[in-house]
Amino acid sequence: MTRTVTILGATGSVGRSTTALLEAAPEGAFAVEALVAGRDAAALAETARRLRARIAVLADPAGLPALREALAGSGIEAAAGPEAVIEAAARPADWTMAAIVGAAGLHPALAALRRGGTLALANKEALVCAGEIFLRAVRDAGATLLPVDSEHNAIFQALDARDPAMVERIILTASGGPFRTASLAEMRAATPEQAVRHPVWSMGAKISIDSATMFNKGLELIEAARLFPVSPDRIEVLVHPQSAVHGLVQYADGSLLAQLGTPDMRTPIAHALAWPNRMRADVARLDLAALGRLEFSAPDPVRFPALRLAREALLAGGGAPTILNAANEVAVARFLSRRLGFLDIARVVEETMERLGTPPVASLDAVIDLDAAARAEAERIASSLHAPA
Amino acid sequence: MTRTVTILGATGSVGRSTTALLEAAPEGAFAVEALVAGRDAAALAETARRLRARIAVLADPAGLPALREALAGSGIEAAAGPEAVIEAAARPADWTMAAIVGAAGLHPALAALRRGGTLALANKEALVCAGEIFLRAVRDAGATLLPVDSEHNAIFQALDARDPAMVERIILTASGGPFRTASLAEMRAATPEQAVRHPVWSMGAKISIDSATMFNKGLELIEAARLFPVSPDRIEVLVHPQSAVHGLVQYADGSLLAQLGTPDMRTPIAHALAWPNRMRADVARLDLAALGRLEFSAPDPVRFPALRLAREALLAGGGAPTILNAANEVAVARFLSRRLGFLDIARVVEETMERLGTPPVASLDAVIDLDAAARAEAERIASSLHAPA
Repeated sequence: MTRTVTILGATGSVGRSTTALLEAAPEGAFAVEALVAGRDAAALAETARRLRARIAVLADPAGLPALREALAGSGIEAAAGPEAVIEAAARPADWTMAAIVGAAGLHPALAALRRGGTLALANKEALVCAGEIFLRAVRDAGATLLPVDSEHNAIFQALDARDPAMVERIILTASGGPFRTASLAEMRAATPEQAVRHPVWSMGAKISIDSATMFNKGLELIEAARLFPVSPDRIEVLVHPQSAVHGLVQYADGSLLAQLGTPDMRTPIAHALAWPNRMRADVARLDLAALGRLEFSAPDPVRFPALRLAREALLAGGGAPTILNAANEVAVARFLSRRLGFLDIARVVEETMERLGTPPVASLDAVIDLDAAARAEAERIASSLHAPA
Repeated sequence: MTRTVTILGATGSVGRSTTALLEAAPEGAFAVEALVAGRDAAALAETARRLRARIAVLADPAGLPALREALAGSGIEAAAGPEAVIEAAARPADWTMAAIVGAAGLHPALAALRRGGTLALANKEALVCAGEIFLRAVRDAGATLLPVDSEHNAIFQALDARDPAMVERIILTASGGPFRTASLAEMRAATPEQAVRHPVWSMGAKISIDSATMFNKGLELIEAARLFPVSPDRIEVLVHPQSAVHGLVQYADGSLLAQLGTPDMRTPIAHALAWPNRMRADVARLDLAALGRLEFSAPDPVRFPALRLAREALLAGGGAPTILNAANEVAVARFLSRRLGFLDIARVVEETMERLGTPPVASLDAVIDLDAAARAEAERIASSLHAPA
């Protein structure tokens, strides 16, 4: 049966991986309903033509004439602007990829969720900053939420949710980043160039720094607590520099189930696209004999306070995770522009969390307001600290 | 709902692990129908009383008076002899553990299978020597066959059989045994004392030698080909000295699912007992951070010809696996009594297979006859070889 698909964020990295899988899928397996992108009319139109989408929508209204022109004669509808994005997200589709990054992705993802069906979630903020709102929408709409980042998708694959009482622990793996074996003194003096050298994944600067501080794992810990039926104290982080094991689930009978693979986003996206079945993905297969060894160690709480801060934010609830996320983004941007020391990233996050406490966040607009307030506070705190020499 | 359970081989190692799990299970989860043992009337009666079984049966008829006496006043029925064993196996039960070792276990396991329900299979010969007969019985009776050795249970846990076309490979892990890194010259001169030193599992002499030759993995390869919906060329063996990963399944989307755990038979037995749910088992949890590293390598076909011989037996079909298994048992016994060199074990197996070809085996009695003929032939071949110095 043909599955209708909408992609929110069709021209970004996750969106392109999704469209590559759709193009390689057997004829008739998928039909594309809506493709949504930010600004790039040419790329969006080209993708919409290749996938024979019914509608292509740009978030930026200024791009509408270029989009119309690029789609002329294709029979594909064109639209633009924030309202058009929400409308496209709300059009009936069996499966939606929510891959618009940051706060901009929240309203479209929620609109897709509220009309039911399956939402593959690549937008981190949805669960970190607006977790309770999203989970309520899932329940109200009878929708299905599938995680598509490697770690949570791995846990989803290893998790049998039939009887949550039999799940003892969920284990998120972490590469440990470029400072896995560094001393505190080395980390204090770390430059942006040193910090972006991620050992396994090739990523953008922001997420590379999050890997170096392990704030990425802190955010994933918060997401995991939203997604899976286990209490936060049963979610652990395990350092695993080869990043071959993406996640594990410990069961009460002693079984530990794990999902492994090469670092390629197409695997978790393919899993979500075909779920509860599977589909082919043309990714490299993990060759354990060639890899030779997998290493594991416990994360160091002294050098990586991000994990403790994430647990604190999770336990505090309300707006605390939003504050953590916003303060971290501000601190990372300052570190990248050499206006903050590496170890001060966690310090800025912790102080921002302390100052702003745990305000309630009952709506997406409240989340977006708190995000802005936390950014302003984090900027103030960061500017009061000395920049690195 | 209470699940009724019969244990064929209640006083052996697998049987004792099973009864330990039943005793620790919540009141009312299980009710024991029949317990069957070989000769040990006292142990059988004691177990039957503890588990409040309805009937206890000894294979050895001479033990009946002792069993009757030990069960006096308990209300538990007592019986003995091969016919009584078959009758006990055929009594209605939701779940049966088939853990009588060797050829003696074949008829009782088949009797249990034919009355339907779930059969947890610990008897290797059932699938290696009588695979086609057992699989036909599973289909005819609409029964469910669950593997309870660590490797196949691991694969069963990692396998989603919904769409076999999406399963690319099944990977059996092997510890590599005591000669994993030995030279061919060292293996040629190996003594029984050196060969039984298994690095991970504590096992009997026969199975320790099978681990040293990797014939255990060859037999498991044959079992895996019977149990799982993949062709033999898609079943691989991966050497993994820590034996923490018990089995893996490679899917077409790039996902590799694995089951890990400490080496404790109670985990796979608990999995089979509770399947498709799970139950608690008081086994040590695998601590990957404490273990530190997992190693993997491809098996060496020169030093370990057992894997090739098993593949050849599997492809030949008919009685070839029976011949391989019988010849191996003879050769191992001779090696243990210093009447055969270590490397000659595989040589005896290969020559026996060459001489006897691929006779058809249409019934359990034909299997048992061929087993005897192969043993005799293997003895002749082995005695024609020089004993080690």
